[in-house]
Amino acid sequence: MSEHDLPSWRETPAKQSIVDFVAAVTHPDSTDLVPESDRVAVFDNDGTLWTEQPLYAQLAFAIDRAAELGHPTSLDKLQAGGMAALMELVTLTHAGITTDEFDAVSRRWLAAARHPRFGRPYPQTVYQPMLELLRLLDRNGFSCWIFSGGGTDFMRSWAADVYGLPPHRVIGSVGETEFHTGAGGPELIKSAAIGVINDGPQKPSSIHRHVGQRPLVAAGNTDGDLAMLQWTAASPYRTLELVVRHTDAEREYAYDRDPILGSGTGQILAAAADHKWTVIDMAADWSAVHPPAA
Amino acid sequence: MSEHDLPSWRETPAKQSIVDFVAAVTHPDSTDLVPESDRVAVFDNDGTLWTEQPLYAQLAFAIDRAAELGHPTSLDKLQAGGMAALMELVTLTHAGITTDEFDAVSRRWLAAARHPRFGRPYPQTVYQPMLELLRLLDRNGFSCWIFSGGGTDFMRSWAADVYGLPPHRVIGSVGETEFHTGAGGPELIKSAAIGVINDGPQKPSSIHRHVGQRPLVAAGNTDGDLAMLQWTAASPYRTLELVVRHTDAEREYAYDRDPILGSGTGQILAAAADHKWTVIDMAADWSAVHPPAA
Repeated sequence: MSEHDLPSWRETPAKQSIVDFVAAVTHPDSTDLVPESDRVAVFDNDGTLWTEQPLYAQLAFAIDRAAELGHPTSLDKLQAGGMAALMELVTLTHAGITTDEFDAVSRRWLAAARHPRFGRPYPQTVYQPMLELLRLLDRNGFSCWIFSGGGTDFMRSWAADVYGLPPHRVIGSVGETEFHTGAGGPELIKSAAIGVINDGPQKPSSIHRHVGQRPLVAAGNTDGDLAMLQWTAASPYRTLELVVRHTDAEREYAYDRDPILGSGTGQILAAAADHKWTVIDMAADWSAVHPPAA
Repeated sequence: MSEHDLPSWRETPAKQSIVDFVAAVTHPDSTDLVPESDRVAVFDNDGTLWTEQPLYAQLAFAIDRAAELGHPTSLDKLQAGGMAALMELVTLTHAGITTDEFDAVSRRWLAAARHPRFGRPYPQTVYQPMLELLRLLDRNGFSCWIFSGGGTDFMRSWAADVYGLPPHRVIGSVGETEFHTGAGGPELIKSAAIGVINDGPQKPSSIHRHVGQRPLVAAGNTDGDLAMLQWTAASPYRTLELVVRHTDAEREYAYDRDPILGSGTGQILAAAADHKWTVIDMAADWSAVHPPAA
């Protein structure tokens, strides 16, 4: 490892716990050495790898897309309408479209949309220190995966460019798709049926299904990530659990409750205290939050 | 490519179509060159990569496991009881057990069981020419995946050793799992709920979900693989579709109908004729079927 590996991390215990862990599981003489084929790291996405405030990028996309389709809505209306209104919006904006078309629509939106506070494209609201962590792990033989509550197809339309991850390592909630051989040849049509809501205890099940190995590293930011961190911590190997805490109102946001779905942080912070997991205090531990302006 | 690449393939048009295709998509000067990150190959398992007669290994496992659990059954009883009897057997032998325990039970069975005709462990009933093809593709930058109707957890208990594939590239039918934090710590319990039956038009949906890219190569042996081959053939790149035909009663089996579930080959052979896909005639095209005895 080099001193240049994590330049946006301050010299605090959070960084030290990462550096110590990576050395312990990769150094050939270490008693905690783990074979490269077992070095799996899993990351939540919204609020862990990129900014989720004031609302998830995917929700901003859905609201814009609904307007484009002639069915304008707003965050206020959605919050008043609860889960039913949200599902209606998802069906309108994510179903009845081929996977190829949806990919094109997502990419077009991502290129055009700007974050309301930072004025930059959403993909540039990723956390620079977490990009450095992904690269450090990759260089040390880890395969990094995303297990998010967000939609798989939406995330895959930008995650390869932003995180350098192949599509098969980007897993989120999944709508069913239906195979058709239409006039333009075989295609997959996104349906309104939800296959998996990838949150909470579903995350370990999804990891088992998509990876088939227990992770060594897990990072999250809300109680919806607790099961994923618990599953990781139960590995027979030495593991690393990271909890990103939003403490930085100045450079990002300060909150302990997920902005839209209301998931809290009480359980994951209590577990972190119990098990000495690494809590990342954004204000204290990171010298930069987002990448430099493009 | 070297002349030693596919030693168990005879010098027939089937081998030639593979050799020509691999050269076309990998040679730097080829007009059909495909970037390495897009070189995805998908394979059915039972009857495509290993012997599925006289009954699927997983069904033999389930019958043996049911007897071990004090509920003996037989193939005759199962065939008389139809799908309901089969589901009851699956629940008895595949559910209510943690994923770790199931893995141990599968491995124990695989080490002890012998194929009734060939007298060798089931993992040694793989097709030697297909192992050579997997290795050839791997050496040429392809990522090879299995998309089978068999159970994911069962296949993963032996596929890494036999095919050299990491667990995430072995996808089959999936039972739901439930996350519990029991006395022994967090665990995943296999439930009786079927998540996905990975056959027919589900295969392209599963490929989209697990790979997120269209394949360049697809291989199957029954009509249950047709959609996977159609989806592959619709790629904008040059592709290769392979249909393994069981024509060799002497060294393996000769049949055009799947032994248990009754899936035929009429549609896939008709499509192969229409689109000039490669039909592999086991008797004519392979100089060896199984690996040499251990």
